[in-house]
Amino acid sequence: MPRTITGFSNPTVKFLRSLREKKHRRREKRFLAEGLRLLTDARENGILPETLVMATTRSPHPLLDALAEDVAAAGGEVLDMDEAILAKVTGKDNPQSVAGVFREFDTSLAALDRGRAPIWLVAQALRDPGNLGTMLRTGDAVGAGGLILLDDCADPFSVEAVRASMGAVFTQRIAQARWEDFIAWLRGGEGQLVAASLRDAQDYRTAPYAAPCFLMVGNESRGLPEAYEDACDLRVTIPMRGRADSLNAAVAAAVLAYEALAHLPTG
Amino acid sequence: MPRTITGFSNPTVKFLRSLREKKHRRREKRFLAEGLRLLTDARENGILPETLVMATTRSPHPLLDALAEDVAAAGGEVLDMDEAILAKVTGKDNPQSVAGVFREFDTSLAALDRGRAPIWLVAQALRDPGNLGTMLRTGDAVGAGGLILLDDCADPFSVEAVRASMGAVFTQRIAQARWEDFIAWLRGGEGQLVAASLRDAQDYRTAPYAAPCFLMVGNESRGLPEAYEDACDLRVTIPMRGRADSLNAAVAAAVLAYEALAHLPTG
Repeated sequence: MPRTITGFSNPTVKFLRSLREKKHRRREKRFLAEGLRLLTDARENGILPETLVMATTRSPHPLLDALAEDVAAAGGEVLDMDEAILAKVTGKDNPQSVAGVFREFDTSLAALDRGRAPIWLVAQALRDPGNLGTMLRTGDAVGAGGLILLDDCADPFSVEAVRASMGAVFTQRIAQARWEDFIAWLRGGEGQLVAASLRDAQDYRTAPYAAPCFLMVGNESRGLPEAYEDACDLRVTIPMRGRADSLNAAVAAAVLAYEALAHLPTG
Repeated sequence: MPRTITGFSNPTVKFLRSLREKKHRRREKRFLAEGLRLLTDARENGILPETLVMATTRSPHPLLDALAEDVAAAGGEVLDMDEAILAKVTGKDNPQSVAGVFREFDTSLAALDRGRAPIWLVAQALRDPGNLGTMLRTGDAVGAGGLILLDDCADPFSVEAVRASMGAVFTQRIAQARWEDFIAWLRGGEGQLVAASLRDAQDYRTAPYAAPCFLMVGNESRGLPEAYEDACDLRVTIPMRGRADSLNAAVAAAVLAYEALAHLPTG
């Protein structure tokens, strides 16, 4: 029988709610993911939450039973919770009926195996957690290895980013690094660095993409610093037929990634 | 000299704030746009706000002077406002130093000239205003004619959608219609209806796109109704190499739109 939590002031509730803030996530090295689909994606990738929280009002579901069983078998905690309290935890009026607390992953560059995939996405100073999660989701879709976050990016373990990733936070590798460390790591092995750019750039449809191909987009307002563009092996231009001079960052990454996918041999 | 507003309870402030809510926008047939860039985009498209509000703390800018002059010359109202009040109006902690009230555009299908552009975007039951604004921005980038919103979509005149559109709300045509009315209108003239689909679909890279090409994406959770897919002239499939079975709706629209752009003759 799972333990049932009915009070807002319960310490577990306070702990779970605290994970909606970056400073607490950082200190605890834990993050929240919500929804049966996300948690099932995690489980099918061999990743189980340390704590599983289920709404007392949930409908029975075989996948939820399997999840609860696995979490308990792995020594995790399974809790029942009033729906109103779960809503406080997830910050949504209509909360999913299940949420989990996960240990944050290793996000060092050293943990990446660049030969694992033909495409990697790279984001510099990306501020919007929704864009970040969408890039993870796109990375999963194109069979990318993961997302490398340069400089001061939004937190990939925020509730918003995890939600927008639609489970890709569990399938894509995530690395966080300063530019200097990234470029040193990149040049220590194979890898083509590509940026969308307007300067001396080639048509993105015919550019010579090569695996492992690192596709880089910049900050939502400022784009990439010039020095970062200069360090690229390939600068490609995406046509802009209207008045605007740029695409949404996650859209630009997706257009590039799908183009590269059509050029690169995939396993 | 512009009139200066310093009180939170001023009727103009109340009116401006009310435009953050859909029911008030609908009743007033007005919407808010903020930021010098957006307002300049509007002006360069011949669209001026009825009311222009500027923060008293703004830095001088020739484009802002030109804007204020044009608004006054057109019989509009130009107001100065305390920054703290402007923050209440726009709902942002760091408000742009300028905002405008615009009259909503005609969003009837009858107002669309389908021959004007080779690409049109269509969204069905799109719930996220950020996705909607991003689709407008992508439409501008590919030289699309506009965005057609089917069934119960987010409001294209919400502050979030206008913001995400990065000015494209002023360059793209926007139409709102029920499916039945849209399909009747579409079949009353030239037009190829295309959807991303997993059923009996062709590779999106080699499909025979034809102008005017209407690229349709569905609701973020449910996708397109089967009957809508059946009514399409072309169903195309975008490869999904990972675990997920779909892309973010705005990303899917962009990947399709850029592919179609490479196939279609453009002016």
